[in-house]
Amino acid sequence: MNKDKAKVRQILDALRASGRDSLTAPEGKQVCDAYGITVPGEGLAKSAAEASKLAAGMGLPVVMKIVSPDILHKTEAGGVIVGIKSADEAARAYDTIVANAKRYKADAKLDGVQVQQMIQGGQEVIVGAVTDGSFGKMVAFGLGGVLVEVLKDITFRLAPATRADALSMLDGIQAAEMLKGVRGGDAVNREALADIIVRVSELVSDFPEIAEMDLNPIFASKSGAVAADVRILCNFNPKPARHRPAEADIVKSMNRIMKPKAVAVIGASDETGKIGNSVMKNLINGGYKGQIYPIHPKSPEIMGHKAYKSVKDVPGEIDTAVFAIPAKLVAGALTECGEKGIAGAVLIPSGFAETGNHEGQQELVEIGRKYNIRMMGPNIYGFYYTPANLCATFCTAYDVKGSTALSSQSGGIGMAIIGFSRSAKMGVSAIVGLGNKSDIDEDDLLLYFEQDDNTKVIAQHCEDLKDGRAFAEVAKRVSKKKPVIVLKAGRTSAGAAAASSHTGALAGNDKIYDDVLRQSGVIRAKSLRQMLDFARGVPILPTPKGENVVIITGAGGSGVLLSDACVDNGLKLLKPMPEDLDAAFRKFIPPFGAAGNPVDITGGEPPITYMNTVRLGLEDERIHALILGYWHTIVTPPMVFARNMVQVIDEMKARGLVKPVVASLAGDVEVEEAAQYLYEHGIPAYAYSTEIPVEILGAKYQWARAAGLL
Amino acid sequence: MNKDKAKVRQILDALRASGRDSLTAPEGKQVCDAYGITVPGEGLAKSAAEASKLAAGMGLPVVMKIVSPDILHKTEAGGVIVGIKSADEAARAYDTIVANAKRYKADAKLDGVQVQQMIQGGQEVIVGAVTDGSFGKMVAFGLGGVLVEVLKDITFRLAPATRADALSMLDGIQAAEMLKGVRGGDAVNREALADIIVRVSELVSDFPEIAEMDLNPIFASKSGAVAADVRILCNFNPKPARHRPAEADIVKSMNRIMKPKAVAVIGASDETGKIGNSVMKNLINGGYKGQIYPIHPKSPEIMGHKAYKSVKDVPGEIDTAVFAIPAKLVAGALTECGEKGIAGAVLIPSGFAETGNHEGQQELVEIGRKYNIRMMGPNIYGFYYTPANLCATFCTAYDVKGSTALSSQSGGIGMAIIGFSRSAKMGVSAIVGLGNKSDIDEDDLLLYFEQDDNTKVIAQHCEDLKDGRAFAEVAKRVSKKKPVIVLKAGRTSAGAAAASSHTGALAGNDKIYDDVLRQSGVIRAKSLRQMLDFARGVPILPTPKGENVVIITGAGGSGVLLSDACVDNGLKLLKPMPEDLDAAFRKFIPPFGAAGNPVDITGGEPPITYMNTVRLGLEDERIHALILGYWHTIVTPPMVFARNMVQVIDEMKARGLVKPVVASLAGDVEVEEAAQYLYEHGIPAYAYSTEIPVEILGAKYQWARAAGLL
Repeated sequence: MNKDKAKVRQILDALRASGRDSLTAPEGKQVCDAYGITVPGEGLAKSAAEASKLAAGMGLPVVMKIVSPDILHKTEAGGVIVGIKSADEAARAYDTIVANAKRYKADAKLDGVQVQQMIQGGQEVIVGAVTDGSFGKMVAFGLGGVLVEVLKDITFRLAPATRADALSMLDGIQAAEMLKGVRGGDAVNREALADIIVRVSELVSDFPEIAEMDLNPIFASKSGAVAADVRILCNFNPKPARHRPAEADIVKSMNRIMKPKAVAVIGASDETGKIGNSVMKNLINGGYKGQIYPIHPKSPEIMGHKAYKSVKDVPGEIDTAVFAIPAKLVAGALTECGEKGIAGAVLIPSGFAETGNHEGQQELVEIGRKYNIRMMGPNIYGFYYTPANLCATFCTAYDVKGSTALSSQSGGIGMAIIGFSRSAKMGVSAIVGLGNKSDIDEDDLLLYFEQDDNTKVIAQHCEDLKDGRAFAEVAKRVSKKKPVIVLKAGRTSAGAAAASSHTGALAGNDKIYDDVLRQSGVIRAKSLRQMLDFARGVPILPTPKGENVVIITGAGGSGVLLSDACVDNGLKLLKPMPEDLDAAFRKFIPPFGAAGNPVDITGGEPPITYMNTVRLGLEDERIHALILGYWHTIVTPPMVFARNMVQVIDEMKARGLVKPVVASLAGDVEVEEAAQYLYEHGIPAYAYSTEIPVEILGAKYQWARAAGLL
Repeated sequence: MNKDKAKVRQILDALRASGRDSLTAPEGKQVCDAYGITVPGEGLAKSAAEASKLAAGMGLPVVMKIVSPDILHKTEAGGVIVGIKSADEAARAYDTIVANAKRYKADAKLDGVQVQQMIQGGQEVIVGAVTDGSFGKMVAFGLGGVLVEVLKDITFRLAPATRADALSMLDGIQAAEMLKGVRGGDAVNREALADIIVRVSELVSDFPEIAEMDLNPIFASKSGAVAADVRILCNFNPKPARHRPAEADIVKSMNRIMKPKAVAVIGASDETGKIGNSVMKNLINGGYKGQIYPIHPKSPEIMGHKAYKSVKDVPGEIDTAVFAIPAKLVAGALTECGEKGIAGAVLIPSGFAETGNHEGQQELVEIGRKYNIRMMGPNIYGFYYTPANLCATFCTAYDVKGSTALSSQSGGIGMAIIGFSRSAKMGVSAIVGLGNKSDIDEDDLLLYFEQDDNTKVIAQHCEDLKDGRAFAEVAKRVSKKKPVIVLKAGRTSAGAAAASSHTGALAGNDKIYDDVLRQSGVIRAKSLRQMLDFARGVPILPTPKGENVVIITGAGGSGVLLSDACVDNGLKLLKPMPEDLDAAFRKFIPPFGAAGNPVDITGGEPPITYMNTVRLGLEDERIHALILGYWHTIVTPPMVFARNMVQVIDEMKARGLVKPVVASLAGDVEVEEAAQYLYEHGIPAYAYSTEIPVEILGAKYQWARAAGLL
């Protein structure tokens, strides 16, 4: 890509030297020229021949205007001619304009005639760039005009953006159809627009002092795109970049922390009700097999484990230190941990940034940096890692092993995760509290869980991302291998205000979060309950091999609601059903049952009808996923249905036919037991809901598409 | 309002006589003129004086054009002059044009000069009308232009529309801000636009043969609104109107059906597994106190009740007949019911429209009409009416009395209602299956529940509304008294297709449903589970007396998510918190707790902190509703919190301080018991969800606003 970096450097250095922070229009134009961003051509002609040459060079048509300090009202003076369509015409226009000007004011000083490319209609669009507090340089695209401003129809990508990113932006706005040519109009030149987006994104990345940039409007047409107006704002004092260890170092530290050979409990206690007592109990009763070292200023032994005055007195190596001491003692103990070479500090204590004690927290950050200790918290409940039987927390123990790793920024949400998990029998590999996130952040956890074979799905609740860019980069890679689910709190303006009074963190622009998360392949949960349902259901579903979804239902009414849910969740029903497949389904259902899709087997059918139709759905290779709508009847009771479904699916699995299946159960309370049985056998199933099972299947599809598996 | 109905009648009669179905542009203009809808003025001038008079009469500026069969290229001939700003100028223009024309073609036949009002910029909008299969005449409003077409930004109201309806439409589009003047532009004349909407809505109501109408574009400006193009399509063979008894008759019949003194079971049986046996069992075991008459061709007695061969043999009056016989026997038995003067037939049997047997269903409709029997179904599970201990159904009995009346079009959804109710201990007054809706429809039920003192909230699942207009009219009135919740299935195109294969009913345009339901004051549930949660939670919440919502939370993280949910559900947080109130809250919470709104009392607080802050929230008259975010800790266990909250609320209630309170509980599984306890004491509370309690509060507010109580 042709880029004259030296030219831009020169302009920006001059700007800085001048003490200004925004470029003038001509300076902005020069920057655009240097980066190959098309702006309207213009030039000053001193003769008819020059006018002719300029016009031919910049592309016709052109508009020509007298340039004279003595002529203010150019039009009145006959000093403006628009719509000049040829070089010859430009030469004649030069003479006409000069003659008119002289006639208008004989003694006027004439500098020449400005020749300017005329922008021709087309679709007005905007390309811009901003510097986000969390994500850094972002490039933006939207339609131009007042209406679009009112509708706030704009989309963002991390800068620099690839050509593919840029093209995806053109489809990423609500009014994307406008670019494709409506009412018989021409489509805009997508390549030209994508080119501008890429160039803007590179410009702001190459020159970090460019804080904001607007090309508004750009006129996009069939033939190309021209930026009619340029606005560039600089910030020569950007905030320092976040310290971030190398990925290999992060993974190494995180492995020691999450799978420690030895854990110290700083502030361990024999006294019931103390946090240091709860942590000891959870470590011991949770079944942790490594060394446990209680640290206490006086006691020689705590709960059967030899106690030490300091971690430095412990003979062997320690990987993880859990802190259960008052805030004011943390810094001292942390220094000792550093001197001991401990990998990670689990900082349960509160009393830092969340209470306004930013200095105290900063002190910890500096100690951690100095000794290369990674810190979880402060202000957290700790963490669970079930494969190591590790409950490094003061909360109640949790031991249902599974493949979902969860984390929460907030302690309350962490407790909700534990309660839901226990109630819904959700298997988890880890639950981690991140609290104030003085150090360990969502991206550190992603790096660990990426290479952790015990984890198949990662679900994270967060209020902000301290380093959204690092998160996005890691998530983009990890989400190709494992579904990443994020509940971003503080989505709305009211929510964001609460986030900022809660953690002191500025919640970012939600549209930016939304775009970045999607581009990173992350599944964004809309609610706490949805995050939990996704965390529970997504890992047990096999990955679909294609887009064709079929609904098989005993309740026609469920079929309608399940169809609604499919559209809401981006699922594609196999439609029209191929004739032979339709006929095959019809063989199993009553003549008045509706085939097509949903396959409505009708309510009064015996278990065999569910089995036959589901077996067909699993066997036929044109079908890639099934949604079941069960209707509780005397003929087919809930547990009979549930066992039969598991039997058919296992039978097909033995034949190598594995497809995602979810179920919605309508019926009396017995359907709850059936739903749990189905879940425990690999079928996310919900009683009294036609939406949740489809949302879960939709999430699996969203992930599979983003990961390039579909 | 000035309306020349005779003129429109004359034009439409002429259209009908001509065999056409669409009006020409001049005819459309005449219709607009007759109804006072402003269209651009125009006329043919045969002299300069006439031109002058025409121009002055229609409003300036005008454009003038030569009218001659011999001049095709008017502009080339100098036959067009635009922007004529005075009557004098018009006279001169007439002469110029005629002179130019003669010079251009000496022998041209000149008919005169057309004088046409020039439409001046402004905002392009569209007003139109359609005839919907369910709702009948609808008036539509949207912005004009391609972009808005792409975004499908349009809103509908039932025609005729009131002035208030029309004004609400201007605010009812996504891009409403465009009408208010953006970037310093003028706001459009709202009165003029509303006037056109009202006039169009009256026109199509006065002349039902107008099937579709478009005024597109209308140019709306500060000074007024002019329809530049008119399109009117007629249909002279409209479908016949639905038969509908008088409201008093409906209520009378429904009262007999829902609270019968005597019930006949046609097809009663002693044999377990038969529908007629289940119905008998449910009637008897459900505790129904009225007369039960089994009808059976042979048995002299069934389950201890004397049986009869026909309802006609029963000595006393019968109000309700429950049918449990094969489809082919229904018509005969129904005729006997008619002869016996029975008020209602509960048609459980399937085998009618849902299996393609439309004739069979039509036969029932005719018998019902003839004898004035109201029919529920066919193809239903029956109904429950708990105040009468009446389980007129073959499903399992349900006896948890309460104040929500539910209905479902689908049997499967009915079963889900029963299961959810039992599981969540939701009190209900009625559950009704409507099935094929051959006769009794959602609006009949609304009329009954409106006057039923046992019912406080009505929740209905439907796939279509056979007579949407009747529903809307009744719902608009009923919803002023009692919240009406509707789950409209077949929302999306995929869903609608399933609906039509299921019931043979064409699901209407969802945007029309959405607008009409909102205008009728109906709360539209987004999902089955949401309908059920609303049905459970909305009736127990007191009606708020103002818009100021305060969140009190132990978990800061919940506070952020609860704030998000407030915005999502249209709730207004009291912000900024008045200084004295903020100070009052701060007295109860730790110094590092965040006051403001959410009031973050922090996680480690004892029960008294929750009590003090909630008491303050209930006492202060500037606060109208509370959302509680509880965080499970050892210091404040779930049931302690729950009991304390109920105590504080009861204490305040005794002082006449009654406000809606909902709660989100984050914690281990014990929070589920606490949530149920809170619900049973008037506080909708949910474990592991920050969204559902806020959605329920949002629904209550939505209702209160629509009912004019706020």
